[in-house]
Amino acid sequence: MTDPRIGSLQQAVPALVLKTAADDLVHYGRDWTRRWAPAPLAIALPGDAGEVQAVVRWARAHGVAIVPSGGRTGLSGGAVAAHGELVLSLERMRRVLGFDAVDRTLTVQAGITLEATQSAAGEQGLAYPVDFAARGSCSIGGNIATNAGGIRVLRYGNTREWVAGLKLVTGHGDLLDLNRGLVKNSSGYDLRHLVIGSEGTLGVVVEATLRLADPPPETSVMLLALPSFESLMQVFAELRSRLELEAFEFFTARALHHVLAGGAQAPFAERHPFYVLAEFASGGDAREVAVLAAFEHCTTRGWVGDGVISQSRDQAAQLWRLREGITESLAPHAPYKHDVSVRVSAMPAFLADAQALLAREYPEFDVVWFGHVGDGNLHINVLRPAQMDADAFAARCGQVTALLAATLQKHGGSISAEHGIGLAKKDYLASTRSPEEIAIMAGIKRVLDPAGIMNPGKIFDAP
Amino acid sequence: MTDPRIGSLQQAVPALVLKTAADDLVHYGRDWTRRWAPAPLAIALPGDAGEVQAVVRWARAHGVAIVPSGGRTGLSGGAVAAHGELVLSLERMRRVLGFDAVDRTLTVQAGITLEATQSAAGEQGLAYPVDFAARGSCSIGGNIATNAGGIRVLRYGNTREWVAGLKLVTGHGDLLDLNRGLVKNSSGYDLRHLVIGSEGTLGVVVEATLRLADPPPETSVMLLALPSFESLMQVFAELRSRLELEAFEFFTARALHHVLAGGAQAPFAERHPFYVLAEFASGGDAREVAVLAAFEHCTTRGWVGDGVISQSRDQAAQLWRLREGITESLAPHAPYKHDVSVRVSAMPAFLADAQALLAREYPEFDVVWFGHVGDGNLHINVLRPAQMDADAFAARCGQVTALLAATLQKHGGSISAEHGIGLAKKDYLASTRSPEEIAIMAGIKRVLDPAGIMNPGKIFDAP
Repeated sequence: MTDPRIGSLQQAVPALVLKTAADDLVHYGRDWTRRWAPAPLAIALPGDAGEVQAVVRWARAHGVAIVPSGGRTGLSGGAVAAHGELVLSLERMRRVLGFDAVDRTLTVQAGITLEATQSAAGEQGLAYPVDFAARGSCSIGGNIATNAGGIRVLRYGNTREWVAGLKLVTGHGDLLDLNRGLVKNSSGYDLRHLVIGSEGTLGVVVEATLRLADPPPETSVMLLALPSFESLMQVFAELRSRLELEAFEFFTARALHHVLAGGAQAPFAERHPFYVLAEFASGGDAREVAVLAAFEHCTTRGWVGDGVISQSRDQAAQLWRLREGITESLAPHAPYKHDVSVRVSAMPAFLADAQALLAREYPEFDVVWFGHVGDGNLHINVLRPAQMDADAFAARCGQVTALLAATLQKHGGSISAEHGIGLAKKDYLASTRSPEEIAIMAGIKRVLDPAGIMNPGKIFDAP
Repeated sequence: MTDPRIGSLQQAVPALVLKTAADDLVHYGRDWTRRWAPAPLAIALPGDAGEVQAVVRWARAHGVAIVPSGGRTGLSGGAVAAHGELVLSLERMRRVLGFDAVDRTLTVQAGITLEATQSAAGEQGLAYPVDFAARGSCSIGGNIATNAGGIRVLRYGNTREWVAGLKLVTGHGDLLDLNRGLVKNSSGYDLRHLVIGSEGTLGVVVEATLRLADPPPETSVMLLALPSFESLMQVFAELRSRLELEAFEFFTARALHHVLAGGAQAPFAERHPFYVLAEFASGGDAREVAVLAAFEHCTTRGWVGDGVISQSRDQAAQLWRLREGITESLAPHAPYKHDVSVRVSAMPAFLADAQALLAREYPEFDVVWFGHVGDGNLHINVLRPAQMDADAFAARCGQVTALLAATLQKHGGSISAEHGIGLAKKDYLASTRSPEEIAIMAGIKRVLDPAGIMNPGKIFDAP
C-alpha cells in the first residue's frame, strides 16, 4: 500500500518525477558507507530549482524530512535516508548553464558530476582543479555540502576556494542567490560560506558558479619508498622547498598490499613500510636539476629507500593508480574510516600518539593508513575481519574513535578533515567543536530551517 | 558628572583601562567618514581576551551597546559610536603571538596594524599579501570585520583567503576558537567565514592566525595614459593574458589632478582622460619581451596614448604614489564614497550606465573615479562643494546612491565591494541582498548576540 503522502506530493508538484520501487529506495537511500539500512519514504527527482522549492514547501507543510542527494559517494552517512525521509535527488539537474571567459567562471546545476565539470572547464581551455577518485559519480552539490578536498588541496585548496556563487533552497523554501559570482562583495554576512560544508542541513544547493583555474602545468610523478614515518615529514619539507608540488600523498605497505591484490603492478622489487607519491611541475633543465637534487638529498640522508620518476603520462597514471585504487580495494572489507586532520606542524607529534593508540587498540585488525600529509590530513581505514559481526565491529571502532578524538583534541585537530560529520562522526563532534559552537550551529539551523526538515540528525541533533 | 555605568564597569573589570576625556570620546568615536558626530559613553581598552569577555558580559547585563574598534580607518561608519555606545578598542592588544614555519602562519592579536603584520611576516622571509594605503593605521581585526580587499586582490584575493583561524568573543560573552589553523576541517558550519565581513555585529575578533605567502616576485610598474573608458577593459584583457599581474588599478584625470595639487610630479607632459597603473612580475628576457609586446599591442590599437615603465624601485614607488595618494588628496573635500562592484564581465555595460547616471545626477559636483578593474570594483568619490552644507550634500548623494543601487541591481552588482555596509550604505543593502537574506542575517545575529549589543544599527537594523 502506497503511503498517502506520496500522492499528496505528486499532487502538489505534478511534474515531479517520483520513484518508490523497492530497489530505488535502497539505491537512493544509502551512500558509500553501507552502515545504515536505507529506508526512505520515496525519491523525488525535481527538474529545476522551482520544483525543488515546491518539494521543500510541501515537506515543510507536512513535516516530512528531506535528505538532499547527489552522487551519494559520501563516506560519513551524510546522504543516508534511514528514517522514512524523502530523498531529494539532484540527478536530473546536471546541466552546464553557462561559461564566462572574462570572469573565468562556469555555472552549473548542482547535480552535475565533478568529472563532467572538469570536462566542461577543459573544453574552455581552463581547469576546475578540485579532484579526487570519486569524480565520475560525486556531484558538485555534494562537493559543496562537504567542502570536498581531495588530492590537489595542497596546491589549489578545498572546494570552498572555487565557489564564486551558489543558489540555495532553504529549509523555509526560499531560493537564495548567494554572492552571484562577485570577486568583491562586503555587503553583510557571507551566507555562501556558511552553506559550504553544511551537509544539506540548511537547505539544498541547486546551482553553483565555479571559478576556473589555468590548465595545470606539465607534471611528472615520483613514487618513493620510505623506511619510516619520521622520514615522511622530512621528505615533504625537502620536496616542498625545491619543487612546485601539485600533490603529495602517502600510504603504507598495507595499503599497497590491497591495491596489488586487486591486480596492480608492484612498483619496487622489495617491500617498504611507507610510500610517497609526489606530483610536481616538470619540463625545463632547471626543474630537472631540482628534482634530481631533491631525490639525492633524500636518499643520502636515508629518508628514501627506493624511488621511481614517471617518464611518460601513462607511467604517471600507473603510479597514481596505486594511490587512487586504495579506497576501492578496501571497499569489500567494509572498512571503518577515520578521516582526521591536524595542523601540518602538529603531524609528527600527533602521528606518534595516534600510532601508539591504534597499535594498542586495534591489535587484531588490519589498519591501513594513507592521506594528504601536506594538508595535515590522514585517512586511517580499519578493515572488518571476515568473521566479525558488523555491529560489533562498528561498536569497537566507535570506542577507538572516542580515544582518537581525545588525541585529536590534545593536538588541536579535527575529527573530520574532508568527509564531513554526517551520521558517522556525530558522536565525536564535541572533540572538534566547543559546546558554544555547537549551540550556535543549532541556532543557525533553526534560522534557515525553522521546521527542522533539512537532513535532520546529520552533523548534530538539533535540540 | 560621570555616568554611573562607568564606575560599574571599572568595578566589574578592575584592570580595564578606561578613557572618558572629551577628546578621547571624539577620537575613538568616529572613523574616516567624519559624517556622524561621535558620542560614545566611554572607551574601554582591554589588555587580553579575558578582559574583552568581561567587558562584553558586563555590557550584556547592563544593556550597553558595544562598538568594536580597530584603527577606525573605515569608510562606511562601521566603527562610529554616535549613540552612547561603549567603544571597545583593541589598541592595547597588538602583539605577535607566534609564527609557525611549517604551517606558514602568523598568529596575532587583532589590534595589530596591517603594516606591523606585513613586517612580522617579512622578518620570517614570507609575506602577508593583503595591502592597501591605510596599512599603517588599520588593524587586522578591522580587516577581518570588513573582509578588506585593497590593491593586491587580483593576485591574492581578499582578507578571507588568508585567515586560517580566528578567536571571537561573541555578543553572549563566549570565546570561540574557530578553525584553529587547520587546512582541512569539515566538522560542521565554518563560523570563521561567517565572522569575516560581519562588521563587529556578531562579536569582537580578538585574535587571528594568518596564512603567509611566498615573498612577492621582483616587479615593475607601468603607468599608461588612456583616451577612453572603453580602452580600459581591452588593456586589462591584453595585459592579463601576457603578464603576471600583481595589480591593475585605474584612475581618472580628476583623480590625478587632486594628487598633483598635493605636490606629486606629473607623469606625462600632456593630460589624458584615464590612467592605468599595472604592477607585474619582471626580470628575465622572456618577461621583458612580453611587456614590450603588450605595450606595443595596446599603442598600435590606439588604446594607450602614452606610457612609462619604472626602471627602479624608487620610480615604481613614485608611480604608486599617484594612485595611493588619491584618497588622502580627496580627504579635505569630505567626499561621499561610492564603493561598488560588479562581475568583471559586467563592467563595460555597468560603466556605461553608471557614467550616464552620474553625469546626469552630479552635474555640478567634482566626481573622481578610480578602482580595481580586475576585481570589478569601482570607487566613485563625489567631492563636497566648499559652499555646500554637509547635510544637504549627504542627502543629495543619498538620492544618487539609491539610483546607483538600482543600476547595480540591474547588473548583479554590490553596493559595497570592500568598505562594508556600516551606517553609510545600510539604506541600500536591499539592492544587493534579498529580503530573505537580510532576515536570515538578522536571525543569525540574534543567535550570536541575543541581547543585540554588538555594534547595533550597523549593516541592518535588527527587528
